[in-house]
Amino acid sequence: MLDVTEKPKVQALLSKLNKVMLAQDINQILSLFVKDCYWRDLLAFTWNIKTMEGNIKVGEMLSAQLAHTKPHDFKIHADREVSSENGVTSAWITFETSTAQCEGQIRIKKGKIWTLLTSMLELKGYEEPLGTNRPMGTRYGSNENQLTWKEQQEKEKTELGSAVQPYAVVIGGGQGGIALGARLRQMGVPTLIIEKNDRAGDSWRNRYKSLCLHDPIWYDHLPYLPFPKSWPVFAPKDKIGDWLEMYTKVMELNYWTRSYVTKAYYDEATQDWVVDVDKDGEKVTLRPKQLVFATGMSGKASIPDFLGQDKFKGDQQHSSNHPGPEGYEGKKAVVIGSNNSAHDICAALWENNVDVTMIQRSSTHIVRSESLIEHGLSALYSEEAVAKGITTELADLTFASIPYAILPEFQKPIYDTIRSQDADFYRGLSVAGFDLDYGTDETGLFMKYLRRGSGYYIDVGASQLVIDGKIKLKNGEVSKVTKDGVLLGDGTKLDADLIVYATGYGSMNGWVADIVDKETADKVGKVWGLGSGTPKDPGPWEGELRNMWKPTQQDGLWFHGGNLHQSRHYSHYLALQLKARMESIPTPIFGLPDVHHTE
Amino acid sequence: MLDVTEKPKVQALLSKLNKVMLAQDINQILSLFVKDCYWRDLLAFTWNIKTMEGNIKVGEMLSAQLAHTKPHDFKIHADREVSSENGVTSAWITFETSTAQCEGQIRIKKGKIWTLLTSMLELKGYEEPLGTNRPMGTRYGSNENQLTWKEQQEKEKTELGSAVQPYAVVIGGGQGGIALGARLRQMGVPTLIIEKNDRAGDSWRNRYKSLCLHDPIWYDHLPYLPFPKSWPVFAPKDKIGDWLEMYTKVMELNYWTRSYVTKAYYDEATQDWVVDVDKDGEKVTLRPKQLVFATGMSGKASIPDFLGQDKFKGDQQHSSNHPGPEGYEGKKAVVIGSNNSAHDICAALWENNVDVTMIQRSSTHIVRSESLIEHGLSALYSEEAVAKGITTELADLTFASIPYAILPEFQKPIYDTIRSQDADFYRGLSVAGFDLDYGTDETGLFMKYLRRGSGYYIDVGASQLVIDGKIKLKNGEVSKVTKDGVLLGDGTKLDADLIVYATGYGSMNGWVADIVDKETADKVGKVWGLGSGTPKDPGPWEGELRNMWKPTQQDGLWFHGGNLHQSRHYSHYLALQLKARMESIPTPIFGLPDVHHTE
Repeated sequence: MLDVTEKPKVQALLSKLNKVMLAQDINQILSLFVKDCYWRDLLAFTWNIKTMEGNIKVGEMLSAQLAHTKPHDFKIHADREVSSENGVTSAWITFETSTAQCEGQIRIKKGKIWTLLTSMLELKGYEEPLGTNRPMGTRYGSNENQLTWKEQQEKEKTELGSAVQPYAVVIGGGQGGIALGARLRQMGVPTLIIEKNDRAGDSWRNRYKSLCLHDPIWYDHLPYLPFPKSWPVFAPKDKIGDWLEMYTKVMELNYWTRSYVTKAYYDEATQDWVVDVDKDGEKVTLRPKQLVFATGMSGKASIPDFLGQDKFKGDQQHSSNHPGPEGYEGKKAVVIGSNNSAHDICAALWENNVDVTMIQRSSTHIVRSESLIEHGLSALYSEEAVAKGITTELADLTFASIPYAILPEFQKPIYDTIRSQDADFYRGLSVAGFDLDYGTDETGLFMKYLRRGSGYYIDVGASQLVIDGKIKLKNGEVSKVTKDGVLLGDGTKLDADLIVYATGYGSMNGWVADIVDKETADKVGKVWGLGSGTPKDPGPWEGELRNMWKPTQQDGLWFHGGNLHQSRHYSHYLALQLKARMESIPTPIFGLPDVHHTE
Repeated sequence: MLDVTEKPKVQALLSKLNKVMLAQDINQILSLFVKDCYWRDLLAFTWNIKTMEGNIKVGEMLSAQLAHTKPHDFKIHADREVSSENGVTSAWITFETSTAQCEGQIRIKKGKIWTLLTSMLELKGYEEPLGTNRPMGTRYGSNENQLTWKEQQEKEKTELGSAVQPYAVVIGGGQGGIALGARLRQMGVPTLIIEKNDRAGDSWRNRYKSLCLHDPIWYDHLPYLPFPKSWPVFAPKDKIGDWLEMYTKVMELNYWTRSYVTKAYYDEATQDWVVDVDKDGEKVTLRPKQLVFATGMSGKASIPDFLGQDKFKGDQQHSSNHPGPEGYEGKKAVVIGSNNSAHDICAALWENNVDVTMIQRSSTHIVRSESLIEHGLSALYSEEAVAKGITTELADLTFASIPYAILPEFQKPIYDTIRSQDADFYRGLSVAGFDLDYGTDETGLFMKYLRRGSGYYIDVGASQLVIDGKIKLKNGEVSKVTKDGVLLGDGTKLDADLIVYATGYGSMNGWVADIVDKETADKVGKVWGLGSGTPKDPGPWEGELRNMWKPTQQDGLWFHGGNLHQSRHYSHYLALQLKARMESIPTPIFGLPDVHHTE
């Protein structure tokens, strides 16, 4: 809650901080922090996405970065309030470095800094042409023979990728590649997006017919052009597909459809990439400086090997290639897996009179969508939040201000509340035989998402079908696939006309192995996860999502993606990093992590 | 400026107003108004767009409308401030009627109401599904075999206009028809938009290549989906075309391209229209209840008859059909006219090395675009206005709160300032021989626009070309067209390979004459103009734009259009009127004007 009495104290602390930063006195700076502090930096100091945990790590970072960063002018943010709760005072701040305008957030306990978020807003001299800085548009008279907007568009379309090389190539034209493309265009970075499907939005259109977003609309906006207030809370896939297609056009993205990268390698001599593209049948070679994989955090389908798969007489496919229930009415389907895709697919099959059995091989964390919104998201992403002045930008920054190391503490109460509020729901599932978890340390869905990107289902109706026995459930391992169906470890035989492997996805560096080579894939290592030591997220602790939106161990190679919120928010930082390199602004990186896992 | 001391006085006045409105005591109500008061009502009391000028007219309206309107709960608007300046106190208000939630504005002089704006916001029971009321989106489980969004869209596309009749048909799919279509869809009114061009946006794409909007972007937003803050101040025509095309798609409009209405008549017996449409070659008959002409206030080209036109060897066309300067390099062009289109076309021709002469037949009012923005628009429509919390909706309502009768007084100082600030500019034009005016009563551009929709140019660079003699200028009447060019009244002979008639447009009821019949066109009468008695706007005084966005003398026939600001703002009121009729909500109209002019 708002607290005007705390404001002078915060101001005093920031004054001190300015003084000691200017003096570059690291010990004095550290004296302003508690020992168990957290400093999350988004580019401003580290040119990385990096959390320094504890005053020693903070000290190491300052030793390396302070001198050239030259941070100054720390102030309370002019348009946001200071608040305090439970002995913690929070304030939004602005400051500058030698290269950038920045903002951030500070949490203070007993007069010292507990958490600090520092985030780069704009590169000085390269501010985005938005709002007051927007371009004027074409004018007459002063410029004979000037090209019209349309002529400029057409020239660019013809030249980029042939006569003129793009600075960046983005592999993948889904929501991630599109959001990043929009940011890069705004920052004047010539970019080509390579998309294999026929049309922008097809990555959504091609999914099974009843799919809708499971995150509420306020969470999902793309950069610069939010969804109108007439949009439903849960957007249907085709509506999203059409929006993405439109967005690609009105945001003027250079977007190649029916195209895919066949091969890419990094030329150390010239320091650019050589990227072979099949451009709708035509062979093209691109030479960008930067190569971004936006192929989908849920992109590289993972299908387990089961004995007998080649003998199966019916249809079988990974969930990502599942066409939907049409044609299977009255038939039998077995869906292997029990997380998000499995539930969506089972529900759609049941709705179309298919006899469907879900095979649960390990526990799943389930949260009812309404509960997730009510307790997990609505404080920041809802109509109510908007009415309170919490813009999408502010919501994103608020969420970013909580270091991953302590995020579980913030999340656990939410899921405790949900577990209690939805006790009947969970009981119904257990009675039906469903193997539930609430996250390893009961910290719930978002932590599971960050740690392993899987192992949960946001319930939008399928769970009731499981509770009612309409979706049949079997627990256990799959022993083998037979010509007629599936044989389970306990000897149960299930006939099937259709097997769907809702068995998840592999790390995005799998695409690097395919397109570049295994050596480079291993060099950059596993993508995603925090190093929490929980299932599918082996340590050591990284404290940030591996390889996402930041420098990797391979020069010029980047990963972009995540959910719509992350794509939107972190595309800003990735675009700034590419822009800085294009403008030869020094970007001395602090704390590039070592690689401990290759997948 | 903000004035907290005035707030209690306003509250007291509103309390009195509530009391006397409840008592339906007209004399008491009138005692709260000054004698020379103005009450502008947008549907709430009159189901019309009507300004009552003076307390007698206010009394007449109340006698007719008060009893069934049942206005109550007048309050100061919860989210907007009371202000006062020069002895006038202004406040935003909210109130309710028996059928609607409403808002408005009040200006108070010496404790009494000087101007009152009453505006309908939402129909009770038919609130738009926006924001907090937005639809949820598809959910599983509860609804077997429910149609997906895509299936619903396809069903609608197939059925509407054949198996299912639209409630409303909108003739014309330019920005006006599109804005209205979006409002109607939001209000659940089944609507078909009939557009003759190949694609939505072509009405812009097909214009000459260098055309940009002359109004700054903040003025131009469409309903629900504003332009992103990355858009230029003056949007190029093709960019607008693409936006309109996208908008039509994402706002889910039922939009027929390559289609036009061949004939329509009103069936008095069934009280609907019989509308014959050529739907991309297929003959279709529609039977809507409501027919809206959104054919363009600048739609029906007006070409004067000159002797010899049929003998001319070169190319000749109305400005609306001018293809642009390509192919005329090194040739001679004569442009007849000296207003907006004439200037744009002359500038584009000059830029492409065409020898161009503008023929000015009557005076033109010119305002430099920068000056118009600075002094005329930026208070309400600019980045600065947005930063001050002046939303597009608030800006529109603020502008609407100034009655047309006194608008000239508000406008004159603006143009006096501009005239003085740009004295050198105007001198340069006069020296070059240009015949300038500043509006009949020197009240400038917007009054000219409202009165006659023509007679001005918003300078975006062409005037300098006239000043420099690059665009040659001739004043006088055209005597005749010869086989080689044009002969002026003073005997001057101008050779021409191209003649462009930048000679304006006729009243929109010309389309009614073409599509319905002359009798109906005459019955509804001239469209546009205020009845000011100034050139091309003959009296008697109407006090509102004739026939625009409100009931006409022909049941079920409506006109929509205007500039992007008017299209956006007034589409709300027109959509509410159609929605009310669709839901059989009584809409007793007050003050339908008599028709005094048929063109």
